[in-house]
Amino acid sequence: MEEKFLHDHPSKPRTKDEIQKAINRLKRIEGQVRGIQKMVEDDRYCVDILVQISAIQSALKNVGFSITERHINHCVSDAIKQGEGKETIEELMTVMKQFSK
Amino acid sequence: MEEKFLHDHPSKPRTKDEIQKAINRLKRIEGQVRGIQKMVEDDRYCVDILVQISAIQSALKNVGFSITERHINHCVSDAIKQGEGKETIEELMTVMKQFSK
Amino acid sequence: MEEKFLHDHPSKPRTKDEIQKAINRLKRIEGQVRGIQKMVEDDRYCVDILVQISAIQSALKNVGFSITERHINHCVSDAIKQGEGKETIEELMTVMKQFSK
Amino acid sequence: MEEKFLHDHPSKPRTKDEIQKAINRLKRIEGQVRGIQKMVEDDRYCVDILVQISAIQSALKNVGFSITERHINHCVSDAIKQGEGKETIEELMTVMKQFSK
Repeated sequence: MEEKFLHDHPSKPRTKDEIQKAINRLKRIEGQVRGIQKMVEDDRYCVDILVQISAIQSALKNVGFSITERHINHCVSDAIKQGEGKETIEELMTVMKQFSK
Repeated sequence: MEEKFLHDHPSKPRTKDEIQKAINRLKRIEGQVRGIQKMVEDDRYCVDILVQISAIQSALKNVGFSITERHINHCVSDAIKQGEGKETIEELMTVMKQFSK
Repeated sequence: MEEKFLHDHPSKPRTKDEIQKAINRLKRIEGQVRGIQKMVEDDRYCVDILVQISAIQSALKNVGFSITERHINHCVSDAIKQGEGKETIEELMTVMKQFSK
Repeated sequence: MEEKFLHDHPSKPRTKDEIQKAINRLKRIEGQVRGIQKMVEDDRYCVDILVQISAIQSALKNVGFSITERHINHCVSDAIKQGEGKETIEELMTVMKQFSK
């Protein structure tokens, strides 16, 4: 990984429940990706495959938003309360710009 | 699947090589999704995870473009040559709009 | 303009009606952009401005889709019928990728 | 406008300089939109127009990011410091999701 981040972990550790929910969503996405492999093997119609890829994009985006919201609620908020918001907000903007490409 | 498409297969079947290349790209994406599960289990920093999700989005988008290009080169082109382009182009626009959300 | 395109005009000229409709949509968008200038002058709330920017993005995207659809229906279809689809489809993919950024 | 926002103005008023810079960027965008009207009137090639629309999209996105960054640096940060971050962060997430469509 070429990039360096401000931290290695969230300012407040994720609970077991939060971790489990995220894993479940990612396992569903993993299953969707395998589903598309099957569609390609079966030489399925391009538009059919594209609609499924679009569904994965949407699911991944939602996972991203969920992580972003928690990040702002904890890491960013904690940094701001400690008067160290500046760098954390810059880092957030950088990843938001990358995400929007 | 609620949607109906104009065809079940591409107008020209994908070659073994085309299928293998697409499968390879999708297997890499599947591995990336599993990588993110590991990152969540290790309670890794939110921004680090977001950058990886963004990399998957980008890889999926490229698979989508590759399928779209082949679709236009074969299915759409063949329909146009046979004077049946109208419906095929409408279907293409619908999936492109869905993709851009 | 640094880029070169395959043509200077659509393969089939736009009708007066098509041109008028596109101009009307663009004039509305121009009005929306001026509306945001007014909001900035009035020091309006950031989120309020962002929602209006998002509305313009959506309107512009729709103009883009409308132009893309006509392009495929005429320029791309005509090129394909004349056996010259390859370059035209490559050009289309390039602009679609740029658009999706 | 159907939507209600948490505030009418930023928590810290924009300076004259900030307002002027934003207006300048929006005036340039307004000029770009008029430029596309001219292209449509001149019946210019579809792909040429699409590239210009894509440039406006990009410029608008950058204005949006700039407003978002200031919003987080002031309105969101101030709310967090006053222990009222929850609603403000929810509002931010809502507009970010709308923006990403």
